[in-house]
Amino acid sequence: MTDKKIRVAVNGYGVIGKRVTDAVRLQPDMELVGVGDVVSDYRVKAAVVLGLPVYASLPEKVDEMKAAGIPVVGTLDDLLAQADVVVDCTPKGIGARNLERYRAAGVKALYQGGEEHSLTGHSFVAQANYETALGRDATRIVSCNTTSTVRTLTALRDAGLLKKARGVLVRRATDPWESDHSGIMNTVVPEPHIPSHQSVDTQTVVPDLDVVTIAAKAAHTQTHNHYWVVELTRPASREEVLEAFRAAPRIAFIRMSDGIVALNSTIELMKDLGRPRGDMWEVALWEDVLTVNGNELYYTYQVYNEAVVIPENVDAIRALAGTVRDGRESIRITDEALGVRHDFLAA
Amino acid sequence: MTDKKIRVAVNGYGVIGKRVTDAVRLQPDMELVGVGDVVSDYRVKAAVVLGLPVYASLPEKVDEMKAAGIPVVGTLDDLLAQADVVVDCTPKGIGARNLERYRAAGVKALYQGGEEHSLTGHSFVAQANYETALGRDATRIVSCNTTSTVRTLTALRDAGLLKKARGVLVRRATDPWESDHSGIMNTVVPEPHIPSHQSVDTQTVVPDLDVVTIAAKAAHTQTHNHYWVVELTRPASREEVLEAFRAAPRIAFIRMSDGIVALNSTIELMKDLGRPRGDMWEVALWEDVLTVNGNELYYTYQVYNEAVVIPENVDAIRALAGTVRDGRESIRITDEALGVRHDFLAA
Amino acid sequence: MTDKKIRVAVNGYGVIGKRVTDAVRLQPDMELVGVGDVVSDYRVKAAVVLGLPVYASLPEKVDEMKAAGIPVVGTLDDLLAQADVVVDCTPKGIGARNLERYRAAGVKALYQGGEEHSLTGHSFVAQANYETALGRDATRIVSCNTTSTVRTLTALRDAGLLKKARGVLVRRATDPWESDHSGIMNTVVPEPHIPSHQSVDTQTVVPDLDVVTIAAKAAHTQTHNHYWVVELTRPASREEVLEAFRAAPRIAFIRMSDGIVALNSTIELMKDLGRPRGDMWEVALWEDVLTVNGNELYYTYQVYNEAVVIPENVDAIRALAGTVRDGRESIRITDEALGVRHDFLAA
Amino acid sequence: MTDKKIRVAVNGYGVIGKRVTDAVRLQPDMELVGVGDVVSDYRVKAAVVLGLPVYASLPEKVDEMKAAGIPVVGTLDDLLAQADVVVDCTPKGIGARNLERYRAAGVKALYQGGEEHSLTGHSFVAQANYETALGRDATRIVSCNTTSTVRTLTALRDAGLLKKARGVLVRRATDPWESDHSGIMNTVVPEPHIPSHQSVDTQTVVPDLDVVTIAAKAAHTQTHNHYWVVELTRPASREEVLEAFRAAPRIAFIRMSDGIVALNSTIELMKDLGRPRGDMWEVALWEDVLTVNGNELYYTYQVYNEAVVIPENVDAIRALAGTVRDGRESIRITDEALGVRHDFLAA
Repeated sequence: MTDKKIRVAVNGYGVIGKRVTDAVRLQPDMELVGVGDVVSDYRVKAAVVLGLPVYASLPEKVDEMKAAGIPVVGTLDDLLAQADVVVDCTPKGIGARNLERYRAAGVKALYQGGEEHSLTGHSFVAQANYETALGRDATRIVSCNTTSTVRTLTALRDAGLLKKARGVLVRRATDPWESDHSGIMNTVVPEPHIPSHQSVDTQTVVPDLDVVTIAAKAAHTQTHNHYWVVELTRPASREEVLEAFRAAPRIAFIRMSDGIVALNSTIELMKDLGRPRGDMWEVALWEDVLTVNGNELYYTYQVYNEAVVIPENVDAIRALAGTVRDGRESIRITDEALGVRHDFLAA
Repeated sequence: MTDKKIRVAVNGYGVIGKRVTDAVRLQPDMELVGVGDVVSDYRVKAAVVLGLPVYASLPEKVDEMKAAGIPVVGTLDDLLAQADVVVDCTPKGIGARNLERYRAAGVKALYQGGEEHSLTGHSFVAQANYETALGRDATRIVSCNTTSTVRTLTALRDAGLLKKARGVLVRRATDPWESDHSGIMNTVVPEPHIPSHQSVDTQTVVPDLDVVTIAAKAAHTQTHNHYWVVELTRPASREEVLEAFRAAPRIAFIRMSDGIVALNSTIELMKDLGRPRGDMWEVALWEDVLTVNGNELYYTYQVYNEAVVIPENVDAIRALAGTVRDGRESIRITDEALGVRHDFLAA
Repeated sequence: MTDKKIRVAVNGYGVIGKRVTDAVRLQPDMELVGVGDVVSDYRVKAAVVLGLPVYASLPEKVDEMKAAGIPVVGTLDDLLAQADVVVDCTPKGIGARNLERYRAAGVKALYQGGEEHSLTGHSFVAQANYETALGRDATRIVSCNTTSTVRTLTALRDAGLLKKARGVLVRRATDPWESDHSGIMNTVVPEPHIPSHQSVDTQTVVPDLDVVTIAAKAAHTQTHNHYWVVELTRPASREEVLEAFRAAPRIAFIRMSDGIVALNSTIELMKDLGRPRGDMWEVALWEDVLTVNGNELYYTYQVYNEAVVIPENVDAIRALAGTVRDGRESIRITDEALGVRHDFLAA
Repeated sequence: MTDKKIRVAVNGYGVIGKRVTDAVRLQPDMELVGVGDVVSDYRVKAAVVLGLPVYASLPEKVDEMKAAGIPVVGTLDDLLAQADVVVDCTPKGIGARNLERYRAAGVKALYQGGEEHSLTGHSFVAQANYETALGRDATRIVSCNTTSTVRTLTALRDAGLLKKARGVLVRRATDPWESDHSGIMNTVVPEPHIPSHQSVDTQTVVPDLDVVTIAAKAAHTQTHNHYWVVELTRPASREEVLEAFRAAPRIAFIRMSDGIVALNSTIELMKDLGRPRGDMWEVALWEDVLTVNGNELYYTYQVYNEAVVIPENVDAIRALAGTVRDGRESIRITDEALGVRHDFLAA
């Protein structure tokens, strides 16, 4: 790690963008140069209250944003001129159009899971393939569901235990702040295709996994919930499996016996622990629900969709910048800076 | 089938009791002698508006019910004195205490899935074991989730296709009329034990099935939603599997391509078809989501928990009465009387 | 009333259209000639299962609908050619474009509350202004919220009790069958303008009412819930107020003491009473919550938004056709045919 | 204010208790001596992770808590021995039984709104009656709904504008972390009595207000939403009314024009501003929805029920301790320590 800090720009100050911004500011080796957006609502006004330098991602929005009282520092070009890496957190589809511009500006670019794998030709989960991103000019952080799938299945694979995995993903329906045109009410909406795209996307990161996902949206707004049936390579003990998960980063145990009995219990726990925004960066896996029967393993975990990819974003910034060559070292720095835990309630 | 109608009493006029009442009244070979309950609220008052004879299940409730304007015809003893079969639909745990009384009155007794298998020593799903209930003095209709599991897995087994089945059951959280002390909000609650009781209960009806269920409650009130990963005995075509389901009773296809894209679409469809109470007695299986890959089969269906066991109740009445010896014949009579379909929208 | 039945066409077979269709078929003096729509989903396929003649509202949809298996009888022109009155139940905004066509075909036209008052120049609630619609070629049924507001406030006005009324309307967020792009989750959305449009719309029917409404959407899908603070012309007794509501049509009492303690209790009651689709055409007013204090009156009621305007549609058909001159007589015929009640649980 | 810090104990580490704990730790003139509870679940374990001294509120719970890994420091007696003031945040009804014990220990006691006014004979809202609590040995913080009602109506009264107020309170149904036995689903539950207890409770703080509330629970878990119709003493301008609210503490404006369009927008804004637990201590009043018409005023605001009483708790500790004699001075200290705002997005 060199002394010079990586200068990071965040383009798109939404669900992911604002969290990446927070996380970058906590890293010892990074410096936030500014955030870009195009709207003038409470999200961007809150960034101003926090003292962040705000840029207009589209030049034609400058006047509107200034009229709304936002002290716009400059345009996207101005923002890119100061950055080593830009994290594109614009809505699905918009980001793809930005790539040439980022390249022209000589800035490395990081995309989110809403974009196609083919855009950058590389999809990233730190523990699985950090090193393959070194030196690239762009990569893509896979979605929250895919990130958690890679984390947990890679943990089992690395312990020599994974033969095949079949998962049912009960997704949250929309974000908790959405108030119109996106919610579902009093229903469950199954994904019409099996396998759902998450298992296909998993294979963009770890091509050789035998994994099939089935997905549905349920009537809640916070965190996804996965149920897995895994065929192990051999009969194993419950403790062996737990140890495999303990050995992997960013998986933390929760327990029914602690009163963590539902998705919303964990959300409360994050607030109780003083987490910023109540975020959980870890996959929260129910230790006391996990069951092994011969060579079959069953488990369920919870994925805080708004936050789980944040540490991956931080690592990918380092990988693109090339300042840290070892993925495990980057993970260590990121997790220490954020306060990632392996067990939320252990001493 | 003899000329004499089976005289049926319903004890407990709640979610199941009122539907059994409706269904019995539609059967050509049955006669409803009355319903018993202990409360004086809108449910029982509605029974009075419908002209049903109402009895007090507990003698000490007679005065209270009369004071509320309910023209109580008599007590449970009076009701039993007129019945050949009583369908006990009282709340979980209450029914068990009634069994000796039913026996003393010489009335055959039918229980619901809230009671233990051991109470009657026999658990019932018509297509799986109708004949074994003939001549018994009591049986138990298994729960809605278990009934649907038995229907679909038996269909695959009977076609020689079933090796093992793993299911994730996304249950409704509470009944749609409940307004206090039972709902969950904006969360999912996983069942703490794997396997969940549904697969264990399935084996009370079909002991030799290799089945494991994982269950959770989601934040909706109408119908359960099951997701299955099935290992077939051999690679099979999609059409073979569909044919196996078509050959079994009380499974009806629905299709995403018809706009049936979520649990609540089907609920609307039942209303559109003029179903009483909007009920669906069939397991509604998404034909165009079902996927076969080699010897693996994936499918999802919807279970209208308030109604799916109603045809089984009707059949079990006949089996206990012994008037129809062939299960398929009873199923035929029941389904014709109710209007059960194999495809809701086919001509 | 002449012997000749009024020939009715329904254009748009959605939430309102399918209910108008049902209601027309129950009237002794009406004949349904067919329904028009443009889609090929389960709603229209269910109409086919019920044996209704289905027409393509747009000629360019004929082939698509036939390809989906719908036996299309003809186009909208064919449908109008057979009708005396058309009930336009197409989505908001579409209907306005149809008016000239209806006029050209010499068919009287009935619109729903999604259209502007200015389209027809007349807005209709049977008890308030039936007679003013006689002889017109078009009118508009006001929305469910406005209909219930007119019903209840007119009842108080007709009893000489109404000085001014201030209402808070807690609306359902979307329809129960919607599964995408319309729901709200775990929130309440206040209407940004006070007064909300409902009180303004009330005055299109009864111009002289002193009424202000404040509206919000809450996180449920079935029925609106209104809370009123009314200043009476003089101190009155509770019984006087109840009598005023009893004297008006299509207001039915419900009671907390019967266990009707929430919006979903009433929905269950409608199913228990065997109502088609579980519909409630009456404003359900909580008798035992209504409170009078001096010259202030407070009450709350429930509006089944999908059904409450159906009797008004039926009456408006007669008013446009001119076959019944007296509004009270039309209301009597409609209500008897549908089974409208003044008290759901009274003997 | 003396140099000696007020020593504060918190008995009951739940929704309110944990927030009072946080707030006390931020005050320059207070010292947290410890928290008492009786359970061993994640809430209390999180307190341990945070480094708080945990006491067993019941001696018989010590062993169980220690067995669960909680390093119990002592019992309630030990906790009280170190405190000047105890904030009782135990569940409704439990606290009343503790009062004699607090008195015997010579510790001043602060209760929450779940307890009756008669328990302490004094009910508290800082801006309304801080001074009357000076020197008392106990008081009660009124509920979140009542606190917000007092704040806003007192603001109007102090500006000479309030004649009478009628409010409809759309409450949240249960807390966001509850997963069983408390939620309502897809419904609204009206309070069966008018006036609801909130207006009665308001008069325990400000006896002379002419106020009537009507209440209901809606299907969401975070924040209450009040709608008010106020008769002013005279016709007033919108600006006069806004100024009255601006002059009062702990009322902050929000705006639809900033995209704060629903209850959940504000919840997201609190997270965006970095608020601990996402808490909002202010009544959030929609500036651009507020409407004045002659002498009638209409407005709506949002009450973060878990947090709105926290500043009142802090002030009441000072009032009981008697260290600050002027309510406005206590409010100033509290609000500065917490970061209370008058406008969330103003520079």
